[in-house]
Amino acid sequence: MSAATSPFGVLLDIDGVLYVGDEPIASAHEALDELRRLSADLRLVTNTTSRSRREVAAHLTELGFQTSLNEILTPAAMAVRYCEEQGHEVVELVVSDGLREDLVELHAPSRGVDVDAVVLGDVGDRFDAQLLNRVFRLLMDGAELIALQHNRYWRRKDGLALDVGAYSAALEYATRREAVVVGKPSPAFFDAAVAELGVEQAVMIGDDVEADVGGAMAAGLAGVLVRTGKFLQKALPPEVTPTAIVDSIVDVPAILQRLFPGER
Amino acid sequence: MSAATSPFGVLLDIDGVLYVGDEPIASAHEALDELRRLSADLRLVTNTTSRSRREVAAHLTELGFQTSLNEILTPAAMAVRYCEEQGHEVVELVVSDGLREDLVELHAPSRGVDVDAVVLGDVGDRFDAQLLNRVFRLLMDGAELIALQHNRYWRRKDGLALDVGAYSAALEYATRREAVVVGKPSPAFFDAAVAELGVEQAVMIGDDVEADVGGAMAAGLAGVLVRTGKFLQKALPPEVTPTAIVDSIVDVPAILQRLFPGER
Repeated sequence: MSAATSPFGVLLDIDGVLYVGDEPIASAHEALDELRRLSADLRLVTNTTSRSRREVAAHLTELGFQTSLNEILTPAAMAVRYCEEQGHEVVELVVSDGLREDLVELHAPSRGVDVDAVVLGDVGDRFDAQLLNRVFRLLMDGAELIALQHNRYWRRKDGLALDVGAYSAALEYATRREAVVVGKPSPAFFDAAVAELGVEQAVMIGDDVEADVGGAMAAGLAGVLVRTGKFLQKALPPEVTPTAIVDSIVDVPAILQRLFPGER
Repeated sequence: MSAATSPFGVLLDIDGVLYVGDEPIASAHEALDELRRLSADLRLVTNTTSRSRREVAAHLTELGFQTSLNEILTPAAMAVRYCEEQGHEVVELVVSDGLREDLVELHAPSRGVDVDAVVLGDVGDRFDAQLLNRVFRLLMDGAELIALQHNRYWRRKDGLALDVGAYSAALEYATRREAVVVGKPSPAFFDAAVAELGVEQAVMIGDDVEADVGGAMAAGLAGVLVRTGKFLQKALPPEVTPTAIVDSIVDVPAILQRLFPGER
């Protein structure tokens, strides 16, 4: 990292931008190195709620991308930050076992203690009426619902499956109260990321025009869409006009030099 | 039934209007007899999705109210009517076992056959990720979601529990498509009820200001609210002004003579 301080921060989506599945995007390693030369304030941001930061970092290392835990921002990290800000001391976790290590700062409830908040992630086939009713009752007793993300569904190996957003929608409908969403595309996610970087300007690079680009731009960041990963031309919604659209991460350094000229 | 044809129809909610729990409302038997003298076109309407019409009739008989299956309108009956109108031939049923007898007209799917619609009722603790994902995939393959009702939650013996509306909301969010709601307060419910009665005017009598009175009035019926059952003065929403509010079903015959003067 050659720059001591950066005039702009870089937020980089991982899946679909650096790699797809187990295949790195062509020349992505060199492009990431170049981005780090352009900005010392770079973070890798992902909406995963099934893997811990340690697992995300291990997967990146396997694929040849060097990183550190502190460089990776996840919804779980944002949930910890949000609960600290709100003074939520007793928090029920509805998350996969692998994610718990990223939420150890939050205190699990003991019997008879009022629960301040419920953190809702993807627990896959563990979602059932018993679990949902237990969470529902906590919410009706005053706990706040914090959704790690709000996706509608995802494609599992055995077919389409409801994602956290759908289960959150059930609880929101029943309680008549919206969940706080701490993952992308929540403005709070991008606000917190920029606050952590301590920069005035930032750019988000991703393959999801709504969650990455639209979310970032709604929070006042620049948004660059890559044509790799889940990018589909037909899926471009009329309400989002990316700051730039490029073929892949390889084209991003040149775009940043154009967006932030002479700021190095 | 003394009137040969009626100038107006009467729709009467059951639970909270004729009885509460296992206790008949005082003088409700005589009031029901009087209503039948005023209109030959009377139907008992309930939003129950856990009991069949036969079970509803048996419970009424136990409490001393004589009725027949044809006099009882339930969301299940409306679902059958709706599927017939829409030409839905292959329908997946997600309902309690007791309700299946009211849906025998609908053909269950066999393997490899496209499913036209899914009828969603309350299956209580049988709601789980496996069931919801199976329904979700049917919807994504083009099936229509038909919710027997759309209540947010209900109070079970062991505490509050999510109701059909919450599970429907999860599926609606994931598919981005609204469910067709065939129970109260859906206008379709009241339209179908009035069509079945073959009358020009009708009145709905109930203890739920939104589901009974508001729903009926939105469909062009008169709506009479009784102060029994779940009635709570504080719960009167500003957007619904009942045609009349009375202490109990005992006061309804006099109200109908005022609403429909000289029409007997």
